[in-house]
Amino acid sequence: MRALVLERKQHAVLREIALPSELGPDDVRIGMRVVGICGSDIHYYETGAIGPFVVREPMVLGHEGSGIVTEVGSAVIHLKPGDRVCMEPGIPNWRSRAAREGRYNLDSTLGFWATPPVHGCLAPEVIHPADLTFRLPDNVTFAEGAFVEPLAVGLQAVKKARIEPGQIGVVLGGGTIGLVTALCAIASGCSKVIVTDVQPERLEVAARYDGIVPVDVSKEDAVARVGALTEGWGAEILFEASGNPKAFAGMFDLVAPGGRVVLIGMPGAAVPLDVVAAQVKEISIETVFRYANVYRNALALLESGRIDVKPLISRTFSFELSVEAFAFAAAGRPDVVKTQIVFEEAPGG
Amino acid sequence: MRALVLERKQHAVLREIALPSELGPDDVRIGMRVVGICGSDIHYYETGAIGPFVVREPMVLGHEGSGIVTEVGSAVIHLKPGDRVCMEPGIPNWRSRAAREGRYNLDSTLGFWATPPVHGCLAPEVIHPADLTFRLPDNVTFAEGAFVEPLAVGLQAVKKARIEPGQIGVVLGGGTIGLVTALCAIASGCSKVIVTDVQPERLEVAARYDGIVPVDVSKEDAVARVGALTEGWGAEILFEASGNPKAFAGMFDLVAPGGRVVLIGMPGAAVPLDVVAAQVKEISIETVFRYANVYRNALALLESGRIDVKPLISRTFSFELSVEAFAFAAAGRPDVVKTQIVFEEAPGG
Amino acid sequence: MRALVLERKQHAVLREIALPSELGPDDVRIGMRVVGICGSDIHYYETGAIGPFVVREPMVLGHEGSGIVTEVGSAVIHLKPGDRVCMEPGIPNWRSRAAREGRYNLDSTLGFWATPPVHGCLAPEVIHPADLTFRLPDNVTFAEGAFVEPLAVGLQAVKKARIEPGQIGVVLGGGTIGLVTALCAIASGCSKVIVTDVQPERLEVAARYDGIVPVDVSKEDAVARVGALTEGWGAEILFEASGNPKAFAGMFDLVAPGGRVVLIGMPGAAVPLDVVAAQVKEISIETVFRYANVYRNALALLESGRIDVKPLISRTFSFELSVEAFAFAAAGRPDVVKTQIVFEEAPGG
Amino acid sequence: MRALVLERKQHAVLREIALPSELGPDDVRIGMRVVGICGSDIHYYETGAIGPFVVREPMVLGHEGSGIVTEVGSAVIHLKPGDRVCMEPGIPNWRSRAAREGRYNLDSTLGFWATPPVHGCLAPEVIHPADLTFRLPDNVTFAEGAFVEPLAVGLQAVKKARIEPGQIGVVLGGGTIGLVTALCAIASGCSKVIVTDVQPERLEVAARYDGIVPVDVSKEDAVARVGALTEGWGAEILFEASGNPKAFAGMFDLVAPGGRVVLIGMPGAAVPLDVVAAQVKEISIETVFRYANVYRNALALLESGRIDVKPLISRTFSFELSVEAFAFAAAGRPDVVKTQIVFEEAPGG
Repeated sequence: MRALVLERKQHAVLREIALPSELGPDDVRIGMRVVGICGSDIHYYETGAIGPFVVREPMVLGHEGSGIVTEVGSAVIHLKPGDRVCMEPGIPNWRSRAAREGRYNLDSTLGFWATPPVHGCLAPEVIHPADLTFRLPDNVTFAEGAFVEPLAVGLQAVKKARIEPGQIGVVLGGGTIGLVTALCAIASGCSKVIVTDVQPERLEVAARYDGIVPVDVSKEDAVARVGALTEGWGAEILFEASGNPKAFAGMFDLVAPGGRVVLIGMPGAAVPLDVVAAQVKEISIETVFRYANVYRNALALLESGRIDVKPLISRTFSFELSVEAFAFAAAGRPDVVKTQIVFEEAPGG
Repeated sequence: MRALVLERKQHAVLREIALPSELGPDDVRIGMRVVGICGSDIHYYETGAIGPFVVREPMVLGHEGSGIVTEVGSAVIHLKPGDRVCMEPGIPNWRSRAAREGRYNLDSTLGFWATPPVHGCLAPEVIHPADLTFRLPDNVTFAEGAFVEPLAVGLQAVKKARIEPGQIGVVLGGGTIGLVTALCAIASGCSKVIVTDVQPERLEVAARYDGIVPVDVSKEDAVARVGALTEGWGAEILFEASGNPKAFAGMFDLVAPGGRVVLIGMPGAAVPLDVVAAQVKEISIETVFRYANVYRNALALLESGRIDVKPLISRTFSFELSVEAFAFAAAGRPDVVKTQIVFEEAPGG
Repeated sequence: MRALVLERKQHAVLREIALPSELGPDDVRIGMRVVGICGSDIHYYETGAIGPFVVREPMVLGHEGSGIVTEVGSAVIHLKPGDRVCMEPGIPNWRSRAAREGRYNLDSTLGFWATPPVHGCLAPEVIHPADLTFRLPDNVTFAEGAFVEPLAVGLQAVKKARIEPGQIGVVLGGGTIGLVTALCAIASGCSKVIVTDVQPERLEVAARYDGIVPVDVSKEDAVARVGALTEGWGAEILFEASGNPKAFAGMFDLVAPGGRVVLIGMPGAAVPLDVVAAQVKEISIETVFRYANVYRNALALLESGRIDVKPLISRTFSFELSVEAFAFAAAGRPDVVKTQIVFEEAPGG
Repeated sequence: MRALVLERKQHAVLREIALPSELGPDDVRIGMRVVGICGSDIHYYETGAIGPFVVREPMVLGHEGSGIVTEVGSAVIHLKPGDRVCMEPGIPNWRSRAAREGRYNLDSTLGFWATPPVHGCLAPEVIHPADLTFRLPDNVTFAEGAFVEPLAVGLQAVKKARIEPGQIGVVLGGGTIGLVTALCAIASGCSKVIVTDVQPERLEVAARYDGIVPVDVSKEDAVARVGALTEGWGAEILFEASGNPKAFAGMFDLVAPGGRVVLIGMPGAAVPLDVVAAQVKEISIETVFRYANVYRNALALLESGRIDVKPLISRTFSFELSVEAFAFAAAGRPDVVKTQIVFEEAPGG
């Protein structure tokens, strides 16, 4: 099958590669329609590794996918050919201790699309477990379906934030994850969410959404702004979505007594944490790693219109131009949020 | 001062009555602007009692109020004359054990407006503790300010529901409290909220809101409807807001495994509860009594537009027609949600 | 294989019956050592049914078991022949939605030993999934191992009670489940646990434990007793372990504002619940159905000596006298807590 | 009154000083019996400051106190002269926003004994709010009563840890707070608590307690030890009670997926935190600042015998030898846990 293969760092090509084609009883075969490019895809593309995960063999990229079911395994009952779907890219061992406790995302044996040595979904066809494949509501497009994966990260973060309706939130970092987290926080009860960044283009995107208060921290003091919005009390919830060590300094000054911080961004090294600043407010800190049990909810929020990700899809490329798509996405233009790759619809598909 | 006094059941008059007029150091004096009529006001008006609370002396009615600060006590710093405000009607002992634990609404010594023997706020002027008086955001009207009290009940219920974004909710009973609870649930992350009732007029009001699915349970099986919306799983959250013993039968059939039920409505007597039906799904049940620490949040949700209560204000009367207002509200027309009483604005006020 | 078979209600016999004998790759074969008799076993024995579960075919009884691994499937790595073990009797579908959410006990397709049509473990040998089979610590006996199953119910209840250290608990009903719940509550931070019952013999057993305050409610007012121990505040936690409808009346009078009730006992029909009495204290109610993810913890508590179930093992019978054991247990002597059946140890076993 | 006054750093004297003597209506007058010396007392004694709190005026030391009520204010009803009591040393504003939310310890206006500019309790007599004064159970000594203050810190930490019964805990740092935290964790359901330190004398004290596993991390790898006790899974709960920046490195290697870390120790500066190590296990982090609403619970645990602090009282001095007591405590002998100062009992007291 022809797929977008990362041969080694900075060298991706569209070429034939042998991929699994046998359908197990619990699997579905999916004709891909849209695949989004994620920061981690770009990271592998540019550096060949993320932490301990090193690309040693050619690997198909892509893990944010949607498509159409073309065949179902003998034991599959909730899906049928023709169903429009999106897919959760991490395949856990359901019997693992983590999975039994409801945290299958923490199963250390989990295989995740486009994380070495597991192939991703930038190919015309994939085989996937049916129970990680979710039907798209009629009013949710393939492009939105492919957006469920990053949206799921925001949902996981917001689930852990346990927002009480009417609270004020802060999101540090206005990239894709920061923005979807802000949208999820608003959908989950925040009356306002301050999004901080230093790139005006990103903040302009943020400003399109009702409820988001963009703050350019290169020009404005976030503590003063949050204080003005909260009578000096601070935000009850803060999401760190930049991964930037600088964001950690002074982070707790933005947070209210008894508030909660959710760490989503992954800094490249240990960051200095002002423990006492957290203690005097008894701030609690949650951490997030991917997601578990949120795909259905993400689809329900898209279907109901509570969350609209369409303004975040900045540019689409055809599958044939996948290499160009990666070059474009890797350029990191600040006005670009999400780049997606679209497969030609099969005749009659 | 001239106030709406309930002399005894079914006998309310607008007359002079001696009310406290001395301003303590921590108090504010408020010129009233709008007072909503609550189901409990009507209950006292019609029957002279609610459970153990019996009207034995003439009592001023009304506890859903907004107004303008006209004078502040010597120790008050966060308010000043001219501030537009609404008031929390329950005055706890802040040193009580319940209050120290953050549950001041459960302080058994709490005095609550228009709950015998405490006078309510249907008078041109009231004295109130400043720390239970909240400034209205500029874009929140006095009518909305007077609506914060019932909205606070919905918020308390939703706070206890700990909704995860994208979940499905059910509200049994489409009265004022049921509707504000549904609005709070949507603002807090529910993708859809099914509201059940048997009165078409009420369901028509509910249907005006995006996200509410009205179900007339005299004509349609709620279990089937919830099942259809949830692939047979059930709703993760159910709010009982009818107080109707019939609503308790079969209630758990609507709820998902691991789901949560919040009991807001107050049945007149013990209701039969199917314990085993709750157990096999390990459903948890929360109960709600008024509210604590939610006024600021309610105002933030009104200010941000996440919640719009204006369609629920069915009719207004002038203060001079307060007796007529009560007669109107007590008639219980199903198309009427909230009736409010408006004070004439003082010249130059 | 020779097993204790319930032919129909009130007719149990020790006889040959064909049972599964093929070992799957994820299974272990276990030589049984001890099986406890549970109230549900007795209920099937006496009435032939529990609610919708009706004994229509001969069924092997018993679900509280311990034994020795004699053979392991090809994929089993954490167990080996000779391991002393106890077994979780409910086999869920790990891919079910309930299981994925960490609540595998709520999977509606779960098969549970000695619940029609699933056979139990009162046979010399059983086949069981390895991942529901737990190694006994060296200092935990087979008798204690067979006690883990009822202990797990108490642990599940206590897990849901979220006890804060130093709180006061109440357990309604001093049967096996009530007593293990009291022990778990003490091990989990309760400074005292009041156990109520009307049978002096049961209360005598309870009184053997440090921290349990037995109260005979046929002679003493539980509300007064709890009030005396809590300066009138009430118990923060109450466990209903009697299943007796009478226990539900007045239940909330024992509970503190903001307190929590955990319903373990399963009444035969709907019980009257005083909703308003719960609401004015904002009491929350949790319900319990079996258990999930607690076996390891139960074994750790037995190993560490924090919980001692040995005083609750009232009588043991040999496997050959299983029918007599059931007759004895079914007699319901109030001084008898747990009756167990012991298998002869195989020579050299 | 004669009191132990810290004139300036390293200069404490027993001398006359004017202290408040007027009894307000809500106050009690207390004849002091025992006062423990806390690490913070020693810190002020040695350096004259803790962070922003600088001793600029002579200040009476001591905040861990017990005594006898000698006089009660006109509004006090729950205490009477002769009552044996201990006192919560932080006096909040009960109307503050933090207090209303049940977190009065986070009220920024709270005045705390022996924290500049507030005097402590190392004087024969103090005036204190009655509602922060707790009666000692009959079997709790004055020495134990004075120990409630540090015990309360451990309880606050354990409350936030939300231990499930049977879990494994780790405490980093075997000082007073580390040890009381370990005791609280065991009383709250931990089957075992590993306490790490590098001083053998401290670990010997720890080893006296059933359930504590002392680990000398200068000689033994804590990760290996925890792994051996948890089948490689890690401890569900970790308490950081050393305040040592080194303890933060590798901290998450000790913790299980989904586990919780509670930060009690206060490092002198920002510490490096390995965010990704926490994220891949979705570890949550709680922080602790003093305590709220735990004194009653601490006394209940002492009364019931679930927690025994007596082995931690290493040495007592008479009030007349207070200066010597501070010199002794400040020497920091590793075999010394708690040093207390005892007042002579008044004749007939």
